[in-house]
Amino acid sequence: MFEARLGSTTLLKKIVDALREIVKQSILDCSDSGIQLQSMDNSHVSLVSLSLEKACFEKYRCDRNMSLGMDLNSLSKVLKCASGDDAVTISAPDKADKVQFSFESAGKERTAEYELRLLNLDQEHLGIPDTEYDCIVIMPATEFARICRDMNNFSESIVIACNKDCIKFSASGELGSVNIKIMQTSNGDVSVSVQEPITLSFAGRYLTTFTRATPLSDKVKIGMSADVPLLVEYVIEDYGYIRYYLAPKVDDPDA
Amino acid sequence: MFEARLGSTTLLKKIVDALREIVKQSILDCSDSGIQLQSMDNSHVSLVSLSLEKACFEKYRCDRNMSLGMDLNSLSKVLKCASGDDAVTISAPDKADKVQFSFESAGKERTAEYELRLLNLDQEHLGIPDTEYDCIVIMPATEFARICRDMNNFSESIVIACNKDCIKFSASGELGSVNIKIMQTSNGDVSVSVQEPITLSFAGRYLTTFTRATPLSDKVKIGMSADVPLLVEYVIEDYGYIRYYLAPKVDDPDA
Amino acid sequence: MFEARLGSTTLLKKIVDALREIVKQSILDCSDSGIQLQSMDNSHVSLVSLSLEKACFEKYRCDRNMSLGMDLNSLSKVLKCASGDDAVTISAPDKADKVQFSFESAGKERTAEYELRLLNLDQEHLGIPDTEYDCIVIMPATEFARICRDMNNFSESIVIACNKDCIKFSASGELGSVNIKIMQTSNGDVSVSVQEPITLSFAGRYLTTFTRATPLSDKVKIGMSADVPLLVEYVIEDYGYIRYYLAPKVDDPDA
Repeated sequence: MFEARLGSTTLLKKIVDALREIVKQSILDCSDSGIQLQSMDNSHVSLVSLSLEKACFEKYRCDRNMSLGMDLNSLSKVLKCASGDDAVTISAPDKADKVQFSFESAGKERTAEYELRLLNLDQEHLGIPDTEYDCIVIMPATEFARICRDMNNFSESIVIACNKDCIKFSASGELGSVNIKIMQTSNGDVSVSVQEPITLSFAGRYLTTFTRATPLSDKVKIGMSADVPLLVEYVIEDYGYIRYYLAPKVDDPDA
Repeated sequence: MFEARLGSTTLLKKIVDALREIVKQSILDCSDSGIQLQSMDNSHVSLVSLSLEKACFEKYRCDRNMSLGMDLNSLSKVLKCASGDDAVTISAPDKADKVQFSFESAGKERTAEYELRLLNLDQEHLGIPDTEYDCIVIMPATEFARICRDMNNFSESIVIACNKDCIKFSASGELGSVNIKIMQTSNGDVSVSVQEPITLSFAGRYLTTFTRATPLSDKVKIGMSADVPLLVEYVIEDYGYIRYYLAPKVDDPDA
Repeated sequence: MFEARLGSTTLLKKIVDALREIVKQSILDCSDSGIQLQSMDNSHVSLVSLSLEKACFEKYRCDRNMSLGMDLNSLSKVLKCASGDDAVTISAPDKADKVQFSFESAGKERTAEYELRLLNLDQEHLGIPDTEYDCIVIMPATEFARICRDMNNFSESIVIACNKDCIKFSASGELGSVNIKIMQTSNGDVSVSVQEPITLSFAGRYLTTFTRATPLSDKVKIGMSADVPLLVEYVIEDYGYIRYYLAPKVDDPDA
């Protein structure tokens, strides 16, 4: 059987919110070491990968590997029924066709149990090669979210350029153009590490979707190299992460 | 003539909000002892009954019985024009075709007077028999509201079961199923008194509508007996109440 | 060239919000003494006039008169991209076809530059004669906004009457009628100065649009005389103002 307990439901809510804009239905792969999820977005352009180590949980037990296929919007509805500070236990017997979510209020005078039907989903596991990125930027997650949102008003594409000690975002469209420059700071708020300067262009709406994970982490890590997908990573409570990958836009030869 | 004054408009706003989801137009029956309103909902399934004793008001005068027919959404619009802490005086001369609402700010430098046209409404007065309920549960009003809202995501029907020292709500549908159990607490937050255990099924959307009265009271009282309508009662400032009645769903013989 | 710097973007946001409900596109007339804008609303019924003296700005330079035609909704989008406490510098070289907005965060670790295309707009300059108003009322801007909003629920027209030491607003429609009376106060919150009592009727929706300027100023000044447009004025930080003008409704002879 599988059983995992979190001291607060808030974390689980944030994770599901970070995923469900990108994938409607997906499989939680539960094993003895923790929970993994990997999925292409609905239009097969970007990829999201979630990992939660055993250590993220108050209690964790997984007798044999299980694949729990779920509709993330249904799951989100279930989680909305819990208070943020309710403890939540996720459980499923072996060969289950349902997964159970039990919420317990702090004083335990209230218990709520939800059963969600599991879905039979096909899923190909994609190997994501470990990449050493030429440019790695770590910056406040809210700042990155705001830039993506602001840029979206101007253009479908966002150009990201890394250069020595700064990262530059730019967009240009009907309305006009915008350039935002973030400098490395001495206090560590923003760190920019560049082996090789690089300039790449991305579809802004995917970047914006990635920023749904902002509530999960203070910082976001951006990794870029020529000819590999952009990495946008949010670390979750030291023992997990959610990573998004997005291929750069191919340069229009006429541009 | 009729004249009634409340020290704050907030209470009146809350009452009208508790009613207008259920009845669009209704009659306030004003007598020397206070104000009563009784009305079936628009689809004639549930019943709401409001009572405000004279003692609820700062000033109260009613020379002869009057029936003031009003459109509750229009009344709500008028009340939105007042600050919550404005004092409000409701008045109507005998045989009036209008009712006047006067709002006075604390410092009295602002006075606002609204006149609403009265409506000619037919209304049958239904006798509501006093019932001794087999099960009586008193619980936090916000908790009940939240349960009704959460259950609505799962099913049109909500099953309520009372049993010794706990009340259990359950629903089951396409998405999955949910069980919420509230235990009697020693600190009096939740009290459950059961003569005879009972399990009844109700249309969730009516229950949800009843919870519009939540801002009126910390606690809600739920009364159930076999073969009589469910009672959902909110006490208003010691001298009044709003009560909702809803017949149980008849069991489907095929179920 | 033209360059003007404000210590905080908030003020500029409020000004644009006060204008863009009334005019979609307009011209900022920049001269050595400051910035002016004058425009009829889109339906040519009301007039808005903005004036910001040089002294409103931290830095101000205007080598030669320039007319910057802008789409106010586009401008609003640009301003939404700045934090309220970012400093903003507006600049344009002579004969520019673009205007640049540079935002700088307090610590300067973030700079954002937006370029907006300028528009070629025709504009007639209207002489607004200086008027001595028979009635001048100064009252809290939020109070005036609330009255306009509340009245709009009752009627398309709002009647404003000034009389000795009070201003009275009234409206009457299908729903019923409303009268709101604001008295002059000894503490200076409300001052009413009346040479000649007057009663005029106005289209409420224009008044409501004017109240978009409420965040700019604690107080609003209302000026009325027979046969001249109503003045509604909000003072901006001692060195500027936004003034709205609206002709009274002509009395319907059959009314």
